[in-house]
Amino acid sequence: MSITVVGSVAYDSIATPAGRRERCLGGAATYFSLSASFFTDVRVIAVVGDDFGPEQEAVFAARNIDTRGIERAGGKTFFWEGSYLDNLNEAKTHQTDLNVFAAFEPKIPDTYRDSEFLFLANIDPVLQRRVREAMPGVKLVAGDTMNYWIKDHRPALLEVLKGLDVLLINDTEARMLAGNPNLVLAARAVMALGPSSLVVKHGEYGATLFHKSSPASKGAEFRAPALPLDEVVDPTGAGDSFAGGFFGYLASQPALTPAAYRRAMFYGSVMGSFAVQRFGTERLQSLTRAEIDERFNLFRELTHLD
Amino acid sequence: MSITVVGSVAYDSIATPAGRRERCLGGAATYFSLSASFFTDVRVIAVVGDDFGPEQEAVFAARNIDTRGIERAGGKTFFWEGSYLDNLNEAKTHQTDLNVFAAFEPKIPDTYRDSEFLFLANIDPVLQRRVREAMPGVKLVAGDTMNYWIKDHRPALLEVLKGLDVLLINDTEARMLAGNPNLVLAARAVMALGPSSLVVKHGEYGATLFHKSSPASKGAEFRAPALPLDEVVDPTGAGDSFAGGFFGYLASQPALTPAAYRRAMFYGSVMGSFAVQRFGTERLQSLTRAEIDERFNLFRELTHLD
Repeated sequence: MSITVVGSVAYDSIATPAGRRERCLGGAATYFSLSASFFTDVRVIAVVGDDFGPEQEAVFAARNIDTRGIERAGGKTFFWEGSYLDNLNEAKTHQTDLNVFAAFEPKIPDTYRDSEFLFLANIDPVLQRRVREAMPGVKLVAGDTMNYWIKDHRPALLEVLKGLDVLLINDTEARMLAGNPNLVLAARAVMALGPSSLVVKHGEYGATLFHKSSPASKGAEFRAPALPLDEVVDPTGAGDSFAGGFFGYLASQPALTPAAYRRAMFYGSVMGSFAVQRFGTERLQSLTRAEIDERFNLFRELTHLD
Repeated sequence: MSITVVGSVAYDSIATPAGRRERCLGGAATYFSLSASFFTDVRVIAVVGDDFGPEQEAVFAARNIDTRGIERAGGKTFFWEGSYLDNLNEAKTHQTDLNVFAAFEPKIPDTYRDSEFLFLANIDPVLQRRVREAMPGVKLVAGDTMNYWIKDHRPALLEVLKGLDVLLINDTEARMLAGNPNLVLAARAVMALGPSSLVVKHGEYGATLFHKSSPASKGAEFRAPALPLDEVVDPTGAGDSFAGGFFGYLASQPALTPAAYRRAMFYGSVMGSFAVQRFGTERLQSLTRAEIDERFNLFRELTHLD
């Protein structure tokens, strides 16, 4: 089944201990859709500027991603500059130019309307809500957000949460959103705001899946590891790549069983682990499904008793 | 097979968000031996003062722990006071009185000499080395250390590492010991100093096992989760309880197979998760083997795909 994703398509300038890249293709919707495209059909809603050219378009085309919902506006594409020189676990933002994103009004192509899965990548919750309301018939809606929206746009974000089935955020965001430092209590508080499932990403320590319906004695439903890597080249997009693997795998399954959710957590971790091994989307562009399944087996070996 | 452990037996005064306890029974050797006693016979080498009474002795006796190697010295028992009021993941030390530990000369009872497993809990590496050298015939030696010894007693610690099969430390200690922020590279550097296996504990995120012999492509050998808990009452002793579960289980096994190491990692995590649910050693004192195995199954359910 196909996924429609709304979010940013951007240029990123990134500095890490491994080097730097200027204006490489980035954005949450880009990482998400490249990652999810290994599992199912993906359709993107975004906006880019005059500076978005055939080279960037070719990256999406090579993965058969439907870009008819990427609007061309006069002006410049969204630009982000950040570094991870002191701490690979946290980006330091140097510059954010919204550019064409400042006046973005998401338009949903008619050809997208039969998508059964919807992903609201990290953008203004007002836009997330608008897209959610424009696609009332979807089977499963997942979304992401970040500290900025949690702190300064809480009312709009709370409206989005009411319409989500699955929220994917990191530890800090979960604790901030719930106002509780304990992860289990924070997860319960977040799910009380709407989503029936919550995926909390722990960076190099993996990710935890919570279901509203899980018995309290379990604490959480499932925990997926991350692959211990001897080199992290660029952490940008790890979370969006996780989301793409997770949601892409779910969308490829005939039924949303507990086992499907567990494997989806593994595929999320697998895709995140590939994304950080090269700058920007480089590794996702060169990836094959055989490599994905090989790494899936490595993850199983890393966590299974027998 | 039996384990001999050398380390501290102490009184702890602890403040956490859940409350406080004055002068409760603590010390690395205490947590380790209570935890390991659920799996195998345990013999303790330590020193206590005149203030160590029948009530404390009874805690060891109830778990059939051999305390003939606990020396009674004139003076006061080792005392530690700490709090976790701001951060449950890191103790703030308010007071450390070495007392009788300042002049401790470990003496190994003859009845301990047939122990095939030796655990060197977190004490002065000079003492760790002395005990190690006094028991050359043991089959497997594991040990712990802490930031203080890594920073200020490095030469003595390096001598201990040469004689260790398994080192158990936390992330920060591993990175500090290796001088490398990348966990996989840090693990390789630490194992190059002696131990053929390394267990790195990640607190609420579980623990990772590294073997010197693991193929580089795997990054690590095995990753065990921690149980997401909705209340952490007192983190004191979690690491020592992990070590007791891990090493106690290994000592109970007929052979040190890869599968035995994996299950040992799970039992370590299980024991750590119990320890933090009550103050001091309270939960370890009331625990049953049936509860341990029930939680082991919960851990399996939390991480297994099928």
